[in-house]
Amino acid sequence: MEATFRRSAAEHRAAVERLLDGLPASLGSETVPLGHALGRTLAAAVAAPRALPGFDNSQMDGYAVRTADLASGRALPVAAPIPAGAAAPPLAPGTTAPIMTGAMVPRGADAVVPVEAADPPRFPASIRRAPSAACGTGGAGAAASAPVVREDDGGARVLLPADVPAGQFIRRAGSDIGEGAEALPAGSYLSAARLGLLAALGVDGVRVLRRPRAVLLSTGDEVVRPGAPLAAGQIHDANTTLLAASLQAAGWDVAGAGLHADDPESFTGHLARAVDGADLVITSGGISQGAYEVVKQALAGHGIAFGSVALQPGGPQGAGLLRLPGREPVPLLAFPGNPVSTYLSFELFLRPALVHHLGLPGRPLVDAVLTQALTGSPSGKLQARRARYDAGCVAPVGGPGSHLLHPLSQANALVLVPADASGVDAGRTVQTLLIGENP
Amino acid sequence: MEATFRRSAAEHRAAVERLLDGLPASLGSETVPLGHALGRTLAAAVAAPRALPGFDNSQMDGYAVRTADLASGRALPVAAPIPAGAAAPPLAPGTTAPIMTGAMVPRGADAVVPVEAADPPRFPASIRRAPSAACGTGGAGAAASAPVVREDDGGARVLLPADVPAGQFIRRAGSDIGEGAEALPAGSYLSAARLGLLAALGVDGVRVLRRPRAVLLSTGDEVVRPGAPLAAGQIHDANTTLLAASLQAAGWDVAGAGLHADDPESFTGHLARAVDGADLVITSGGISQGAYEVVKQALAGHGIAFGSVALQPGGPQGAGLLRLPGREPVPLLAFPGNPVSTYLSFELFLRPALVHHLGLPGRPLVDAVLTQALTGSPSGKLQARRARYDAGCVAPVGGPGSHLLHPLSQANALVLVPADASGVDAGRTVQTLLIGENP
Repeated sequence: MEATFRRSAAEHRAAVERLLDGLPASLGSETVPLGHALGRTLAAAVAAPRALPGFDNSQMDGYAVRTADLASGRALPVAAPIPAGAAAPPLAPGTTAPIMTGAMVPRGADAVVPVEAADPPRFPASIRRAPSAACGTGGAGAAASAPVVREDDGGARVLLPADVPAGQFIRRAGSDIGEGAEALPAGSYLSAARLGLLAALGVDGVRVLRRPRAVLLSTGDEVVRPGAPLAAGQIHDANTTLLAASLQAAGWDVAGAGLHADDPESFTGHLARAVDGADLVITSGGISQGAYEVVKQALAGHGIAFGSVALQPGGPQGAGLLRLPGREPVPLLAFPGNPVSTYLSFELFLRPALVHHLGLPGRPLVDAVLTQALTGSPSGKLQARRARYDAGCVAPVGGPGSHLLHPLSQANALVLVPADASGVDAGRTVQTLLIGENP
Repeated sequence: MEATFRRSAAEHRAAVERLLDGLPASLGSETVPLGHALGRTLAAAVAAPRALPGFDNSQMDGYAVRTADLASGRALPVAAPIPAGAAAPPLAPGTTAPIMTGAMVPRGADAVVPVEAADPPRFPASIRRAPSAACGTGGAGAAASAPVVREDDGGARVLLPADVPAGQFIRRAGSDIGEGAEALPAGSYLSAARLGLLAALGVDGVRVLRRPRAVLLSTGDEVVRPGAPLAAGQIHDANTTLLAASLQAAGWDVAGAGLHADDPESFTGHLARAVDGADLVITSGGISQGAYEVVKQALAGHGIAFGSVALQPGGPQGAGLLRLPGREPVPLLAFPGNPVSTYLSFELFLRPALVHHLGLPGRPLVDAVLTQALTGSPSGKLQARRARYDAGCVAPVGGPGSHLLHPLSQANALVLVPADASGVDAGRTVQTLLIGENP
């Protein structure tokens, strides 16, 4: 018989995290285009191949100036405009050049004056592109449609304020990130913002961890798949759907999801076939105190410890490195069979480990004011009550029962009632985990 | 020339929401299996086809009893056990039946006593399944492996506590949801928990809105695609990647993403080809005060209003129903070209509209204590500063510049500095939007 355990929720969370210590290394890596990298985990740090910005550029549509030229208070002759995307010729002393947002600041200029601050407060009409400018150039595409840069602006002059600090409205090269600096560390979760950073750096493909693969096994003689008819005493399996969707949202592939009746030998045989290539096995059901606890019975002697976590619901738990003859060891988590317990097991134990090992975003933990008293929390156990959070307040939804899926489907938060409390009065502040999925 | 506007951020958010009023109806619907429905929007309400639980069942592994039989304080004869998944025969008066978690409570029983509270505190050995029980039955599968239900338990008796309230540890039929009750309203975002509820109800396919399709157009003579070489003054396009990933995370398909140089006529032609079948067009760049503002020039007269929103960064905005000759009108949002401005435009204007119209989860807004003073917020404008939130505190990351992608890639929150504040002192409480993607 395997070890059993009695643990706090924090201790079991740490144990699950340790169980998955080898996960990132075992996944290996692959290169994918940026467009397919959302939600993946960076396999190696990315250093900036160039600085951002790559060159000093204007933060405004305005006039590039030498600030020393402004002291006289005289109107300056307007030089050729500097559009974005072009090399800028040096700014001749005593002149100013219209410059567009993002355009290269010309050598010699040390500030930009916004066009609204100029007199007149607009660019000379001659530099605006006529609507038909691209016609008659005989070609399509970027080269043909680039704005025409003239040598000068036909004698236009502009009056600019005298008191312009050097550096005004210039974005310096490297002010976002310097060339060679670490843009993203290894293990970074690739969010939209991070992919945007990589794109700005010119990176078009990225080395990420292979997508992890989970095998799910729901157990119970009473459980049949959704859509199938029910005989007396039977129920439809919610856990496979619940876990598959939770894992999918966390970037996992789910393989070999299956239902299994309460027979240990056939369960073990099924498991032996299913684990090949799996990075994690999750079972649900079959681990409590009943007479027919298939998972507990089948996995005795195969590396899995079963025990009790001071959590309600979700107390019965199993975890370990599954060792089956002729198979590579694979981490296995045995969750309890009630769907709310399964859901909480994922959110409170597995998800934090994925946050730690794969960089996945965590659930925000906030303080919130409880709008309605919670009573009857079991002594010595952390209780996770389903609730709705809104603007600093949190209201319980439904009771504590682990079978209450309908209230779970309405909850966007979990109120964590501490193990040493038997309840919480209305108006008290409670730790609240924003699970966020049910708006 | 089209209308221009000056709006607060809240006014522009409301305008974008109104612009997309017709989106859900225009999408139409399709039926998908549960396993492909994560993140989709329910097209019609789902009523519970049956109650949950479907029958009174035991919340514990224990003994089903008539509470009236316990008053005598005598040990009761143990009847045949009731496993989960089987029809339960009526409980004969004066007897008790071992019952497993989730098993049907037999007619006549009105409470369950947990096995730990019984004397002896375990089930009779004869009802436990021998590890080899499934062998020798000559078959595999659920029927062959179901636990054997014996007529009685060979004379075993068990002593149970006298003071058991009626109803104890029984989950009543319909206590989660009643048959015919609304399980999920139309417009529900399909989260893992909601899909779990549908699975428990036996639903295996679900009618959802068609996945919406966006067309993205990044503009600017200076912008080239990531991976391409840069000429002087050029930069790599971050916005297509940033917006495509943001939309993908919100469940959209992104079609026809493209880069376009600053030529209005060729831009309009490109747009006319791209909009077919699009539910939304998003452009970035080309809408501010410069001389070469391609989007503004191209879309003048085509239904798009351009103006200024009291937001920093992200002030220049355009929005409207794009009307091109021979094409169906399609909502268009014109975002500013700096990547942080584009990102904020998505998060502060488009995402809230998707929350409203497609049920997408919103970003939590929390109060947090600012750890470091913020100064220089522009008067009259809401400022969105990138920051890191942790356990009730929030620290700014990087400066206010709209080109600062590296700090954005490290931020998990936006501090919202109100329009009437020029800054916020350290230690003050600030409204903080948890963008959450960058752990």
